Amino acid sequence: MSEPLDISSKDNPLLQRLRKLARDPAAYRKSGELWLEGEHLCSALQQRGQRPAQAVVSQAAWAQPALRALALWAPRVLRVPDALFDGLSALPSPARIGYLLPLPATPAIDPRAASVVLDRLQDAGNVGSILRSAAAFGVGQVLALQGTAALWSPKVLRAGMGAHFGLRLVEGLLPDDLAALQVPLVGTSLGTDQLLHQAALPQPCAWVLGHEGQGVSADLLARCALQVRIPQPGGEESLNVAAAAAVCFYEAQRRG
Amino acid sequence: MSEPLDISSKDNPLLQRLRKLARDPAAYRKSGELWLEGEHLCSALQQRGQRPAQAVVSQAAWAQPALRALALWAPRVLRVPDALFDGLSALPSPARIGYLLPLPATPAIDPRAASVVLDRLQDAGNVGSILRSAAAFGVGQVLALQGTAALWSPKVLRAGMGAHFGLRLVEGLLPDDLAALQVPLVGTSLGTDQLLHQAALPQPCAWVLGHEGQGVSADLLARCALQVRIPQPGGEESLNVAAAAAVCFYEAQRRG
Repeated sequence: MSEPLDISSKDNPLLQRLRKLARDPAAYRKSGELWLEGEHLCSALQQRGQRPAQAVVSQAAWAQPALRALALWAPRVLRVPDALFDGLSALPSPARIGYLLPLPATPAIDPRAASVVLDRLQDAGNVGSILRSAAAFGVGQVLALQGTAALWSPKVLRAGMGAHFGLRLVEGLLPDDLAALQVPLVGTSLGTDQLLHQAALPQPCAWVLGHEGQGVSADLLARCALQVRIPQPGGEESLNVAAAAAVCFYEAQRRG
Repeated sequence: MSEPLDISSKDNPLLQRLRKLARDPAAYRKSGELWLEGEHLCSALQQRGQRPAQAVVSQAAWAQPALRALALWAPRVLRVPDALFDGLSALPSPARIGYLLPLPATPAIDPRAASVVLDRLQDAGNVGSILRSAAAFGVGQVLALQGTAALWSPKVLRAGMGAHFGLRLVEGLLPDDLAALQVPLVGTSLGTDQLLHQAALPQPCAWVLGHEGQGVSADLLARCALQVRIPQPGGEESLNVAAAAAVCFYEAQRRG
């Protein structure tokens, strides 16, 4: 069992890197490193058999057997005073443990995978919830167009609850990149009469979900083989995009 | 057209009340007043023909015709310097307008209404999203058990996007209070083999959704006429509760 390395200076270069990763949602793109914060996300990585480069724990967390064991899943453990850990945290009340790991290499688009396309979604909570639903319903590939919230940001990771590690995630795409897909695009739109539950759904398909305020762009809708609308007797603009995503994935799953 | 009343002291008693309402999620229960912040929520109230007691606008917002018109929907308008308005805000980047209005009287439970029961849901964003989906899918009554996030808090209002004003909202309930319902309770649970899309759903019903970590309490599940599980091939614990709610409401709506 490796002994942890104690760090007590907030000016330690590694802690400076972690602070940046915790605070800047897109910092991972430059640094090529991910900061997974909290027991749930660290456990999710461990359960997939993936090892981080290092663990960072507070002294109080190290004193707890379950968190210590989680820390020791990493080949290298840094231990910091509790107050110093709080400065690394993007979360309101985190367990004081985190993993630092290299950002996974961006995969190529799988042309035949059941997919969801995110068209400039802004809200990190929505994006994380959609990743979680995608993983739950077996939609294995997430294609994020430029302008979408950074997929590996701390807030999206947190809302994703570990779904990231089971999905094929491709971000920074342009609409033209979607030409690589061989599965048809199915757009959600309020401007069509085709109701979701009555539509002839291609399976697998790539669901296209749009910006919280503006919906799917006209350009992207024009590329869709099918447009569908979720029946909403209470008002056609009222469903949150993450709720809409779950409904679409469920409908495909229900048909089997 | 009434002229706005200018306030420039942060110690003004009304502004002190608003700050408390903005910061304390349950402050409205004591004060009996709601603080609706931002253009969207104010517009949603206006569109229902409901008038607030007063509007509060920043000087910059007052200079914008659309926001000025929204402010003038109130019988009384207070105008404050922009920096002072920011201290009233619970939101990251609000339009600087808000309405103050009396908290609606809590209605009695409608025994026959399509309903959703919230069993100790913690996250304000989840609760708001569920209210939004309920309004969209025509589930008109929300019954929140004690321990659920305060329904009229600024964060739930924000996530609800105006859904509050079209729903019958009853909070602070005990499980025994649900005996007033004549529609059957349908619980969502991971512990049943009955899949949602194959279940004989009573309509209308009262959907029961549980705590983000613990699910529906055993006591409450025992009161359910039916328990259903949403098929999740990717893992049975992975769906967010607001996503699960949308799926349940959709399934009932789809069957018509």
